[in-house]
Amino acid sequence: MLRISIVGAGAIGRIHAHNVARHNGARLAYICDVNPEAASALASEHGGRAVGSIGDAVGDDVDGVIIASSTASHGDVANACIAAGKPFLCEKPLASDLSTAAKIVESVRAANLVAGMAFNRRFDPQYAGIKTAVANGEIGKMECILITSRTASAPTLDFIKTSGGLFGEKGSHFYDLVRWITGEHPIELFAMGAALINPSFADVGEVDTAMTSMRLPSGTLCQFDFSWRAAYGQDERLEVCGSKGMLQTQQAPSGPFTRFAASGMTHSGLMPTWFERFEETYKVELDVFFEAIASEGRDGLPTLADGLAAQQLADMAKQSARDGAPVLIPASG
Amino acid sequence: MLRISIVGAGAIGRIHAHNVARHNGARLAYICDVNPEAASALASEHGGRAVGSIGDAVGDDVDGVIIASSTASHGDVANACIAAGKPFLCEKPLASDLSTAAKIVESVRAANLVAGMAFNRRFDPQYAGIKTAVANGEIGKMECILITSRTASAPTLDFIKTSGGLFGEKGSHFYDLVRWITGEHPIELFAMGAALINPSFADVGEVDTAMTSMRLPSGTLCQFDFSWRAAYGQDERLEVCGSKGMLQTQQAPSGPFTRFAASGMTHSGLMPTWFERFEETYKVELDVFFEAIASEGRDGLPTLADGLAAQQLADMAKQSARDGAPVLIPASG
Amino acid sequence: MLRISIVGAGAIGRIHAHNVARHNGARLAYICDVNPEAASALASEHGGRAVGSIGDAVGDDVDGVIIASSTASHGDVANACIAAGKPFLCEKPLASDLSTAAKIVESVRAANLVAGMAFNRRFDPQYAGIKTAVANGEIGKMECILITSRTASAPTLDFIKTSGGLFGEKGSHFYDLVRWITGEHPIELFAMGAALINPSFADVGEVDTAMTSMRLPSGTLCQFDFSWRAAYGQDERLEVCGSKGMLQTQQAPSGPFTRFAASGMTHSGLMPTWFERFEETYKVELDVFFEAIASEGRDGLPTLADGLAAQQLADMAKQSARDGAPVLIPASG
Amino acid sequence: MLRISIVGAGAIGRIHAHNVARHNGARLAYICDVNPEAASALASEHGGRAVGSIGDAVGDDVDGVIIASSTASHGDVANACIAAGKPFLCEKPLASDLSTAAKIVESVRAANLVAGMAFNRRFDPQYAGIKTAVANGEIGKMECILITSRTASAPTLDFIKTSGGLFGEKGSHFYDLVRWITGEHPIELFAMGAALINPSFADVGEVDTAMTSMRLPSGTLCQFDFSWRAAYGQDERLEVCGSKGMLQTQQAPSGPFTRFAASGMTHSGLMPTWFERFEETYKVELDVFFEAIASEGRDGLPTLADGLAAQQLADMAKQSARDGAPVLIPASG
Repeated sequence: MLRISIVGAGAIGRIHAHNVARHNGARLAYICDVNPEAASALASEHGGRAVGSIGDAVGDDVDGVIIASSTASHGDVANACIAAGKPFLCEKPLASDLSTAAKIVESVRAANLVAGMAFNRRFDPQYAGIKTAVANGEIGKMECILITSRTASAPTLDFIKTSGGLFGEKGSHFYDLVRWITGEHPIELFAMGAALINPSFADVGEVDTAMTSMRLPSGTLCQFDFSWRAAYGQDERLEVCGSKGMLQTQQAPSGPFTRFAASGMTHSGLMPTWFERFEETYKVELDVFFEAIASEGRDGLPTLADGLAAQQLADMAKQSARDGAPVLIPASG
Repeated sequence: MLRISIVGAGAIGRIHAHNVARHNGARLAYICDVNPEAASALASEHGGRAVGSIGDAVGDDVDGVIIASSTASHGDVANACIAAGKPFLCEKPLASDLSTAAKIVESVRAANLVAGMAFNRRFDPQYAGIKTAVANGEIGKMECILITSRTASAPTLDFIKTSGGLFGEKGSHFYDLVRWITGEHPIELFAMGAALINPSFADVGEVDTAMTSMRLPSGTLCQFDFSWRAAYGQDERLEVCGSKGMLQTQQAPSGPFTRFAASGMTHSGLMPTWFERFEETYKVELDVFFEAIASEGRDGLPTLADGLAAQQLADMAKQSARDGAPVLIPASG
Repeated sequence: MLRISIVGAGAIGRIHAHNVARHNGARLAYICDVNPEAASALASEHGGRAVGSIGDAVGDDVDGVIIASSTASHGDVANACIAAGKPFLCEKPLASDLSTAAKIVESVRAANLVAGMAFNRRFDPQYAGIKTAVANGEIGKMECILITSRTASAPTLDFIKTSGGLFGEKGSHFYDLVRWITGEHPIELFAMGAALINPSFADVGEVDTAMTSMRLPSGTLCQFDFSWRAAYGQDERLEVCGSKGMLQTQQAPSGPFTRFAASGMTHSGLMPTWFERFEETYKVELDVFFEAIASEGRDGLPTLADGLAAQQLADMAKQSARDGAPVLIPASG
Repeated sequence: MLRISIVGAGAIGRIHAHNVARHNGARLAYICDVNPEAASALASEHGGRAVGSIGDAVGDDVDGVIIASSTASHGDVANACIAAGKPFLCEKPLASDLSTAAKIVESVRAANLVAGMAFNRRFDPQYAGIKTAVANGEIGKMECILITSRTASAPTLDFIKTSGGLFGEKGSHFYDLVRWITGEHPIELFAMGAALINPSFADVGEVDTAMTSMRLPSGTLCQFDFSWRAAYGQDERLEVCGSKGMLQTQQAPSGPFTRFAASGMTHSGLMPTWFERFEETYKVELDVFFEAIASEGRDGLPTLADGLAAQQLADMAKQSARDGAPVLIPASG
């Protein structure tokens, strides 16, 4: 049984605590949060000991750490894990600035530590299935990729001030998906954004609705459409079109049957939030992380370098949207 | 240009008059109805001369006749066509009793006259496509056939008294479809009916909701589900299942786009009535009838013998529902 | 933690053992099978002690029993549970003959024992959702119910000789669903069957393909279409049509995305077998059974009387198909 | 009966000739083409007199003109119509350069002539239905619009040299749709293109695959995804998302039924080309044009100013894609 510490007892930390507690191969060691009550509450619900300092959560009786604290603390927690030699799984972003993140990537590489980014969408059967089908050549040469992600509700203005914004919080997931599916890093990017849902986002230089266009080295063109409002539920779609055909995820209705009435044929709507839509991916993500700890292999675990690359793209998109200008990206290794 | 007479200026007669008037290869010669005003109204709208007697509608200046009058008159009109040597297309049933119908089949055969039953559903691309796919062996050996037909509204009690009832008016279309798709005539049949929509139908021995089960000589089992009420539009479906797969028609929504809202995903409903659903088939039916007149070939034209066979099955179903007993059908040629 | 014995280490017993072992509120006490190796194998995989006699599986250290042994033994095992005062969940049928089954229903009632039939389909969200929607009056007065159940593969001739046959093994699930959704017991029934998949079934008086028609006291008509062959996966559908609209389950594709190619738009097929389609229902069923044991309430647990009623209907359907005659059913309480 | 001249006997001219010949309220007067054989062939098939000069096609015996000749000639033909006072319907673009087009718009306005752009997609029930639903407030405040248009095959390099390119030939239709649905003219635009299908397009500065992003004055963001390759048929979609919900056109399969097999559930594919997909819109377009001639009203007829605006946007998109820079658009009246 792996002994797992969770750093951060907020929304995402709660999901991980719930899943670790129910996992056959792991149990909770420590729940660490700067807010002692939050840590205690989560520990009393799912097991593990509540602690207030990261140092108490990376001791000898710990096999791995899940970093789910606030963005600003990610870098420090990651560095504490590296110092203690503890494998970790980090919610995005890896650190609040790119240079800190890059140093962490380097330290982990030097220490040959098992560490991964929590890009849970990679574990969704829709996205994983399309990656496989593309790799199998089902659609020939890729030509364009379209991704839509609209979420039921927007974060608060307070959250948005210290967070990665729409491009960082939402966009990085999908920039990562494109990199993962294609194996390519974009060479050109343009973003256009607006504060249509909460106009006060504009006052802090943020947006809640945005389009991004990208060009990949192979020539493939990509479009992303992000929104923090979807009155009709979590709407997330991906399609990949190539010389021989097209693959498209389904907008699966949340309900099990169809109503036929004089007013039309109605399915229940989409899933209400991202959580119901992607609940299962968090479990698979743990399986992969725990397997990586046990085997010291890393197959299937999104790397920290992946996390850094997605963060760079999100930063560029934000910059592009602010400047109203495209960004040319030097080819990376 | 073929000169076509239409006998009967009611609902179906109007559809045919409209279509003949717009056909490139035909024009209306006479509109015949016992009600002179109805005939005149239709003639003034679509052309042709209004007449009151069948004798006036089968003269030398007529190339073909469409029989769309009341059921009770079909036999007499058909015989008048035969006497005048005029090709005709007859709405079901061929005659109000089976022995008259059988004699007409025989007379037409003896006269080698072009004559067909107006089984318009055979000309629907859904049904025709499935017949072809089955013939091509796509589903292997046929094992079961399911047919649903629910219509938006029930006929009146007055109509039902003199009509073929649910099994005759509606059922015969689908008994014909099964014979046409499979090339087989059933050997056993059981029907169960009820007057659920208009309970007074029961007083005249009729039903408005019914199930029929049939066995074909090859062993294939069939089920039919008929109703004269569908609050949600014309609902008509057919599926054929075999050893290798299944073919199923689609319940195509009537509207062109999907609405996503908090209450669900809604398509516009099904077509409101049989007319919108099968409007096109009436046009194709005329093409086939006119081509048969011109070429004296009969390919694709449902035969009078087909009409007689479907009428026999409808009569047996009605009998089975009344007696609560299955009917064994002697193998026919 | 409830201590649960499983009687029968075959296919269904394995499913239950797997689910009990993973249940938060229960653990395996004994695995009982006449074949000691089968019992030992299952116990070594999921826990519990392997025993060979029912007497060893209903001792003081047992809180409940799941009867998943061969049909012929159900009655004896149920009676052993009653004698020991142990709550039990019984796979259908309750006993191999109706009179034994009726006596068990009576004994359980007299002992006020918690005991239920394993009608797992009641726990499927599709079926449960439709029951609720009907009860809420969404479709007005019910008029007809259509049920299709086609399974990927047929049982062997050996199995069929001692089993309940198509009407008992498959049909009883759906006869129960209709009783459960409508709250009515049918008053008339007709069945038509054939051995189309394995013609040797006919030699032992059994069928592999069948239609059933039923009439309910309220007038509602029902149709069932059963087959032990579906080359395209587990195909199970239910629709309920009423005066105000219609509810229809969906044939959800098993795969997550759609392929668009020159040859058409292709979804992955249906679930391969009943197990993938209904895997979750077995877990919910345990929740309900365990809750009933704990609370001595029986809400949501299908009763043994339900099991007896479905078994009676299956017997009547089998009889109807053999005799080629409908069965009139005396109104029951 | 309106007497209609068609200028241009190529692919589009043929469609119009076919439809005029079958229209109840019009007949062909002249077919004009620089290639006398093409004009004669079309005239002999559908009626009308073949002529070689535009002057012969705008005489007293002509009520209206359809301009379907090569792009380079549009301006001259339009001016000939204006000089002769003949109503005309012009295939896009109005002229090969914007200043000529602007002068034509002005001349038509001065002459108060009935003249329209052949933006046939406005007459598609999908697009028209969505415009109406948006106007009815069904989705609240509009926030984003997504349009995909992928066509089965690319034009030749020769055609592309003298045509409007991907942004002009294809894009202008969809830029017009957005203007028409929203009633707004964009204020910012960015396009990214590539020659992925026919790399030699790049040699003449053209693309065959492109993305466009647009910002409207109200804040609504739009994305367009164009391709001249779709191995799976004509794929054209539009969705509009707002504060209260989303509207989405359907990718209707071309075939009438669904095949269920071990390999999956397959619908027939999309329509093979734009023609089958939009065949009906050309007929409605004629109805609207002929009604405008007859009534001297212009309701429903896309204006020449609409044509000019779409052409301007297409030019800007082409420029943006070439320069790799966004274009800011001064607010227009």
